[in-house]
Amino acid sequence: MSNPIVVEVVRGARVESRHRGAGAVVDADGAVALAFGEIDEPVFPRSAVKALQSLPLVESGAADALRLSEAEIALACASHSGAPAHVETAAAMLAKAGLDAASLACGAHWPLGEDASRTLSRSGQTPSPLHNNCSGKHAGFLCLACASGWDAKGYEQAAHPVQRAAKAAIEEVTGAALGEDVCATDGCSIPTYAVPLRALAFGYARLATGAGLAPRRAAAAKRILAAVAASPAMIAGEGRFDTEVMRLFGPQVFVKTGAEGVYCAALPELGLGLAVKADDGATRAAQAMIAALIGRFLSVDGESRAHLESFAAPVLRNWNGIAVGGLRRAGPLRGPPA
Amino acid sequence: MSNPIVVEVVRGARVESRHRGAGAVVDADGAVALAFGEIDEPVFPRSAVKALQSLPLVESGAADALRLSEAEIALACASHSGAPAHVETAAAMLAKAGLDAASLACGAHWPLGEDASRTLSRSGQTPSPLHNNCSGKHAGFLCLACASGWDAKGYEQAAHPVQRAAKAAIEEVTGAALGEDVCATDGCSIPTYAVPLRALAFGYARLATGAGLAPRRAAAAKRILAAVAASPAMIAGEGRFDTEVMRLFGPQVFVKTGAEGVYCAALPELGLGLAVKADDGATRAAQAMIAALIGRFLSVDGESRAHLESFAAPVLRNWNGIAVGGLRRAGPLRGPPA
Repeated sequence: MSNPIVVEVVRGARVESRHRGAGAVVDADGAVALAFGEIDEPVFPRSAVKALQSLPLVESGAADALRLSEAEIALACASHSGAPAHVETAAAMLAKAGLDAASLACGAHWPLGEDASRTLSRSGQTPSPLHNNCSGKHAGFLCLACASGWDAKGYEQAAHPVQRAAKAAIEEVTGAALGEDVCATDGCSIPTYAVPLRALAFGYARLATGAGLAPRRAAAAKRILAAVAASPAMIAGEGRFDTEVMRLFGPQVFVKTGAEGVYCAALPELGLGLAVKADDGATRAAQAMIAALIGRFLSVDGESRAHLESFAAPVLRNWNGIAVGGLRRAGPLRGPPA
Repeated sequence: MSNPIVVEVVRGARVESRHRGAGAVVDADGAVALAFGEIDEPVFPRSAVKALQSLPLVESGAADALRLSEAEIALACASHSGAPAHVETAAAMLAKAGLDAASLACGAHWPLGEDASRTLSRSGQTPSPLHNNCSGKHAGFLCLACASGWDAKGYEQAAHPVQRAAKAAIEEVTGAALGEDVCATDGCSIPTYAVPLRALAFGYARLATGAGLAPRRAAAAKRILAAVAASPAMIAGEGRFDTEVMRLFGPQVFVKTGAEGVYCAALPELGLGLAVKADDGATRAAQAMIAALIGRFLSVDGESRAHLESFAAPVLRNWNGIAVGGLRRAGPLRGPPA
């Protein structure tokens, strides 16, 4: 496998580091609008498919049965910063299912958000599973189990009806077959299934347009994307790419990160889905790639273009704030500002 | 440039991410014992040359004039965790030069060490330049300036005698010409000069053996390596690779990380220098590479081999402690356990 160099990290006048990667932009008919690198090799999307994994929660009627708010539905798709608003929202979802943090199987880690993490340290507390960036998704799984009358115990296991429903949604929307051979365990203990970038992009085009989906599923997809667009701070957190880009472009862009250098996105008005993976797993490279692709397809005006460019080709500053270099697009992504 | 894949990140039964890189193992005569990838392309060694940058401090007599301890000399070569012992040692060095933290030009950042960072947060404090992982090196620069009768102001600038001396030491020991074309600014605001991996490995072989160096410089090199071997906790910190490996092997191994995926090392008894760079700048890949090379050349017994292997091919665990995958050697590094 030899994907092209797509992002260069420059220090002074020299390239210090290089990232290789692959990406696909696909419409809901499966037509490829742009591709680079190997897009038919399955990659683990990790958290980049949380919006697909949350389809059963909404389309089953569970979200309505438990009166989940739109912000709570947004949090079910999130890799959040562990800020107080995220923690409180996850706790509220669990309470609606008659549960609490003890039911979460995701494990605990310090908040992803630097501010949230420092604040928690200062308070003398240690993190709970509610601070886990996946706690909203797990709370959503538990809400689905509760409203469906399933025993919640073991909801993170591949054989549990919750995970079977999530897997079936990914399979149907992306068209990829998810067998044992592409299954591994994610950071939060649920199964993760490797899916080719072409299929991920196709799936996000279908999620954004509803094309080819059953009416009930298409309606759920529309509602999920609208919920995230209305509460962009829920999906990630202040200062983070996913939140900032969705705040900038509203319902024009849905974008979601996954660990090990994955990004998926949708441009609903254009009917396009996007998926990228950095070979080496670097988030900085995946972010630069997806920002470049969004900028290439979306009609972006002056100030928004500059903001997007600050993510696509960020300036690197040292501890004294001196600009010492930056990231730049290379190879198939070389071109004008995002 | 196309360096080989040297480290694979595995999740379940599949490769999730891949790191490319280059590396060289060279003796003090310049003979290459092992090489893979492009080893004649200059790369920024960043903090991996701190031991070379600290030669002037020792060989000039400045360290003795200011009665620096061996632990303080070790800290001058460190990328430390910002733990209390590191902060106190840097402050003591500055005091011996009649200065304090206000003279440090490195800027402030939260301690690299997780424990140190959390402890500082809990205390309600914010980081000072003493917590910067480079504060020992900067304190060493200031000690050199003070003992030499140079105005300390601007000591971080390329034209200052301190940086000219550091550059001259790197040039002489590695044999690489360091012109404007390979100069950029490091994270701590001093100049960093790109050097080919072959020359870095050659330089560390000479540093470790003294071969080809003037007696005064050879003696300083010997003293610096002995100082680090005697205080391995100074060079990095508890739980970190450099400290753990030097604790494990004592004076048999000197190893030092640099930002953006660089490692340099020396095996003094074998007369070998080692240098690696991960193309993408990933520390996890550079660490796996240098651990694999150390394990290949050094005679390592059972328990030490297992400990080294835990760095060369670490198991990846998720937030519940479940083993979900790991790193493994690939391509030219494929082979038996480190």
